[in-house]
Amino acid sequence: MLRYFEDVAVGDRFGSRSYVVTEEAIKAFASEFDVQRFHLDATAGATSDFGGLVASGWHTAAIAMRLFTTGELQFVGGAIGLAVDELRWPAAVHPGDTLQLTTEILEARRSRSKNGRGIIRIRNVMTNQVGAVVLSYSALAMVQTRGVA
Amino acid sequence: MLRYFEDVAVGDRFGSRSYVVTEEAIKAFASEFDVQRFHLDATAGATSDFGGLVASGWHTAAIAMRLFTTGELQFVGGAIGLAVDELRWPAAVHPGDTLQLTTEILEARRSRSKNGRGIIRIRNVMTNQVGAVVLSYSALAMVQTRGVA
Repeated sequence: MLRYFEDVAVGDRFGSRSYVVTEEAIKAFASEFDVQRFHLDATAGATSDFGGLVASGWHTAAIAMRLFTTGELQFVGGAIGLAVDELRWPAAVHPGDTLQLTTEILEARRSRSKNGRGIIRIRNVMTNQVGAVVLSYSALAMVQTRGVA
Repeated sequence: MLRYFEDVAVGDRFGSRSYVVTEEAIKAFASEFDVQRFHLDATAGATSDFGGLVASGWHTAAIAMRLFTTGELQFVGGAIGLAVDELRWPAAVHPGDTLQLTTEILEARRSRSKNGRGIIRIRNVMTNQVGAVVLSYSALAMVQTRGVA
């Protein structure tokens, strides 16, 4: 179901598919974008503060976006991200973890500057297979309204 | 040069290499992590608010991390990201753009909870070939101190 701005309300919550993180994916992302050794090599990870190979925080954030853009909350014309705040990684992501995302609508208002657009603030929380939060943030996004206000 | 916590001071600034963003890279990242049409297809991008194919904001953030982890500011044992705030994308990233990152030290203090660690707050600003800011954020990171305090 593709939604317009008018189809969501503060407090609505939306789920996602599951995503299994592989060691290969962790290393592939890190070798392209975050070449710190604890993201590239299990031995280096074991001797780091992490105690093992862990995914880059930016990989974790990218996985959250995958779960968001394939999840239950989809808008006609997409959702254009304007700002992200309070991005946190309370627990590390390890090979074999299964992740899921929950999205909650925190605010919704019509755009003051752009006709036909609404602004939503969402909170995204991603958890692993034991329910530990591995990532959370709030985001402002612009979406389409059904009718011109 | 690999640094310890003691080797940086508030106000220090560090540069990066350059990174050229290709259309293929934009589409590859989007197909894995941000499957919105304006990141996947030039035609869909042209009819969107962006007016052309643009990189996912999370791709842009990942490129910034690549420039950070290959840039002038490198720490012994790496820099472990704790938090990111005020993540913004003032201008879109298009195929062919050349990006560079500047990192400034905003705060530096010893960890209160972990011996041998310091906490730095940095501001990362990434610009394109005409000097437009395409991404900015502030981040807290944990790094190693030279000696136990």
